[in-house]
Amino acid sequence: MNKLAAAARGEIPAELVIHNARIANVLTQSYELADVAIQSGKIAGIANHYEGEKNFDASGRVLIPSFIDGHIHIEDTFMTPPNFAKIAALHGTGSVFADPHEISNALGIAGLEFMFRASLGLPINIFYGAPSCVPASEFETPYEELDINAIKSMFDRNLVNHLGEMMNFPAIISGDSDSWAKVLLAGKLPVTGHAPGVSGKSLNAYISAGISSDHECTDLNEAREKLSRGMYIMIREGSSFRDLKTLLPLIHDNPLNASRCMIVSDDITARDLLANGHMDYKLRIMLREGLNPFIALRMITLTPAEYFRVYELGLIAPGYNADFVLLGESELDENFSVKEVWKSGRLIVRDNDVFDMNDTEHLAPVIKTQIKNVPSQEDIQVSYSGHEGELINVIGITEGTTITKTLQVTPKVHEGFVVPDTENDIAKIVVLERHRDTGQFSAGFVRGLGIKRGAIGSSVAHDAHNFVVAGSDDESIITALKALAEMGGGLVITEGKNIIASFALPIGGLMCYLPPERIACDLTSMETQAETHGVKIPHPFMVLSFLCLSVIPELRITDQGYIDITNGGRQNIFVR
Amino acid sequence: MNKLAAAARGEIPAELVIHNARIANVLTQSYELADVAIQSGKIAGIANHYEGEKNFDASGRVLIPSFIDGHIHIEDTFMTPPNFAKIAALHGTGSVFADPHEISNALGIAGLEFMFRASLGLPINIFYGAPSCVPASEFETPYEELDINAIKSMFDRNLVNHLGEMMNFPAIISGDSDSWAKVLLAGKLPVTGHAPGVSGKSLNAYISAGISSDHECTDLNEAREKLSRGMYIMIREGSSFRDLKTLLPLIHDNPLNASRCMIVSDDITARDLLANGHMDYKLRIMLREGLNPFIALRMITLTPAEYFRVYELGLIAPGYNADFVLLGESELDENFSVKEVWKSGRLIVRDNDVFDMNDTEHLAPVIKTQIKNVPSQEDIQVSYSGHEGELINVIGITEGTTITKTLQVTPKVHEGFVVPDTENDIAKIVVLERHRDTGQFSAGFVRGLGIKRGAIGSSVAHDAHNFVVAGSDDESIITALKALAEMGGGLVITEGKNIIASFALPIGGLMCYLPPERIACDLTSMETQAETHGVKIPHPFMVLSFLCLSVIPELRITDQGYIDITNGGRQNIFVR
Repeated sequence: MNKLAAAARGEIPAELVIHNARIANVLTQSYELADVAIQSGKIAGIANHYEGEKNFDASGRVLIPSFIDGHIHIEDTFMTPPNFAKIAALHGTGSVFADPHEISNALGIAGLEFMFRASLGLPINIFYGAPSCVPASEFETPYEELDINAIKSMFDRNLVNHLGEMMNFPAIISGDSDSWAKVLLAGKLPVTGHAPGVSGKSLNAYISAGISSDHECTDLNEAREKLSRGMYIMIREGSSFRDLKTLLPLIHDNPLNASRCMIVSDDITARDLLANGHMDYKLRIMLREGLNPFIALRMITLTPAEYFRVYELGLIAPGYNADFVLLGESELDENFSVKEVWKSGRLIVRDNDVFDMNDTEHLAPVIKTQIKNVPSQEDIQVSYSGHEGELINVIGITEGTTITKTLQVTPKVHEGFVVPDTENDIAKIVVLERHRDTGQFSAGFVRGLGIKRGAIGSSVAHDAHNFVVAGSDDESIITALKALAEMGGGLVITEGKNIIASFALPIGGLMCYLPPERIACDLTSMETQAETHGVKIPHPFMVLSFLCLSVIPELRITDQGYIDITNGGRQNIFVR
Repeated sequence: MNKLAAAARGEIPAELVIHNARIANVLTQSYELADVAIQSGKIAGIANHYEGEKNFDASGRVLIPSFIDGHIHIEDTFMTPPNFAKIAALHGTGSVFADPHEISNALGIAGLEFMFRASLGLPINIFYGAPSCVPASEFETPYEELDINAIKSMFDRNLVNHLGEMMNFPAIISGDSDSWAKVLLAGKLPVTGHAPGVSGKSLNAYISAGISSDHECTDLNEAREKLSRGMYIMIREGSSFRDLKTLLPLIHDNPLNASRCMIVSDDITARDLLANGHMDYKLRIMLREGLNPFIALRMITLTPAEYFRVYELGLIAPGYNADFVLLGESELDENFSVKEVWKSGRLIVRDNDVFDMNDTEHLAPVIKTQIKNVPSQEDIQVSYSGHEGELINVIGITEGTTITKTLQVTPKVHEGFVVPDTENDIAKIVVLERHRDTGQFSAGFVRGLGIKRGAIGSSVAHDAHNFVVAGSDDESIITALKALAEMGGGLVITEGKNIIASFALPIGGLMCYLPPERIACDLTSMETQAETHGVKIPHPFMVLSFLCLSVIPELRITDQGYIDITNGGRQNIFVR
């Protein structure tokens, strides 16, 4: 401790001094040309001159705090935490707040332990929230339920520093005592929210439980209402769901809102991370949209640190962790580039090289369910009732948002069965329980994927992560389900009896050990392949995976059937 | 809990509904005309319409969160916590964060226990910090030292929710391990600071310990530097020390700073509270200075709540404590008035009446030291060295600020002794240790009080609260010391052998049980009396009391003699 004070006073040479840096200060909203002294992993001081044992000349380049992502599901990158951390660090990210509920749904406690262990000693800080909703709702079938005692032990063991997104908003709104009890477990730690489209008195009830943020705003007025009710707004800019430009007026209207808004990823692919970047990409968008660079920077540095009550992050100031980024020659404008990155005072990134990684090959979780109960083509047929003019409910995909619509459509009938209607872009969708080999499945229909022939399938199917397959014919669908069972999870494209392409996700059917570049490349070829089957929507496998998430309106499908969370749950295929 | 959700949903009538209020929202910076539902002491919801068991028609009047004072020493009002709470509540204050280090200096642990007990069941929340510096420095002599174990037990027992102002900034800056250990005790709770005039590398060292706020800024650049280094700025507007107008440009320059700045009282008299008000008065000043009313309001509601990490205070939003104020007919402009005040959903103030008080008559602490060792006139004489042209150091008072100057002055000499020089407004000042009856005293000289005849004395003498007397002649000074010893503490005005006026402070020589109006009236008559002795400076007894505070530059006097904290401590009377 005294070394920190002595280094701050300049009485001993600091372990490291960054000389002649232009420090971006989000509080004064100005640059300060100064030396930064680092001691014991912390920033000791900022002054015109410091002497260091090690010295680094920034030669007037811009120094900023490392970026913070306030909400991400690492599993959805298909990468292990170390591989994700490597890419994030290369793009200037210093810390992420991750909700590991995907792995918890797929592998239970063992999956969580895997994530916690795999996140030690990385070039970024990965802070975890305790998954609050495993399963996301009673209408999903996970590997195992994460009960309140398991959540309590995570808090007791300090494995988590917040409660993960409380997705079961109907339960909170209705005052369900179990769900409220989970919120109370967080005590003084923040409780993150998930309340798509919730407003008015229902929103009051949701917030009154003590839920203090939301990342599901897809509409400006929705965000304004939640902000006015005291919520921190996590503006999502992920791969398939992009709300940043829609919600930026929050900040343009009133820059003071930058102290209550942050930008988050939620779900992002390895390819987007490699191609566009992580928080640096979100910052570039904000700068391109003409936001004051210091205000934009605050929302991905200090504000998330304040919200998550991690008071040593997010600022270049004495006593803060020495997590910072030196830019290339450019200003903090839309052309900025990340050149060097330090974590706790250690240089970990330089010119697109990242140092000191750990290795998690040995951490593979052993759990694997052999799936024998795959339905037959006959099993998944949907009989037509035969009532004159009867309509069916179809899941309507809305590109660019998580929200789906319930479409009422005249069914295409063939030999007494409702069948896919490729003319009208209506595919059949089947979800098969894959954790306990119960054989439980459901079938429905979806519009908007564009599938003309064959099927696409995935073991990534939020949040229970059962097998989901959408296709133009039953044979292709069954082939896909069998392939997924065979692989133990992954992505697959089939046509008739043939597997056209596949990509294995051996870690719980969610992640793999492949290097990020390989993941991105394989995913791209899968999507290109899917295009030849007519699939035109961007990120088709991610879109497919979200069709199963029962806690987002309107119509979803799980192994238990059609679900509409805001309208009482289970729905029929036929409109009656 | 479920009742809260049910009331929020409007499915059961809320315990109380405020109808038709214009709710001031500091987040949206706008008014919202709506009903507010209150259940179980919390705000359940805000909506166009709610039904209540009890209903209150605000008929379009403005509703705001109750005010929060981020830093005050209640003892300096001379009032007991219940009497202070009564006045504060009448002016719309809902919560204060108080540092009880005065009573701790004067009565030790027993004094602290008195404050904690006396603060239960009041119409406002009084949150205490653990006094970090009792004594304020090694150069003061208190009743007893408050050691690190005592501080730890206060945190362990949840008697406090922050560490009180770390006044011993030289110790922190030098890396003193005891002082750093006290800071570490706070853990995740905030550590409040006191670093007058500290800047540059010294400020870096001070902040690097984890001290996150400061209320001693008297200069705009000082405040800007501290803000830029990550400190929350507590802008002080008390009775004798008023920094608000000086520091408001912080907010005018950049409204976003309202999320990092708050307005505090520090030291304020009963008379000012009664005559001008409390936080409402500070708000009126800001509004008169043309500050956006929502931004001004944020700094005395949400921002202090955020800083002190009390997340249920400072907003009109679901789940927050139902602590709020209804204004009179006016807007939130400089003419606004506080009409009704609710705490935890209970109406406690209406038209200048405050309900439900507790009574602390029985809580009087028993400790009382009999002071027998009072020096004689001969004892306090200051012999002149006789060196040709030798100067003496004199404490120079600067009106309106805590800072004093070290003046070097040609002494007035009479019969071999340095004597007061009323022509040049130089009085003699004597401090006598009063806790242990050691008889230890010191004598010096002060310019700026205006005393022409007699003496004024007080047992309120920051922070050790020994007896301090300033006078134009030794006889009046000794008479004052004897009177203070006789009273067991208070304020006194003497001339020669005569006690002209006195005011007793039986609780540790700091507080009394008199009603606020009586305290204000007696204090006024004491000051009017002092004026007839030539004393022209406002709040002369408060100014006198601060001449002993060893942790503020430049020259101070304690029972140990002249002290200059930034120049190594003890100083001589003679300049050598």
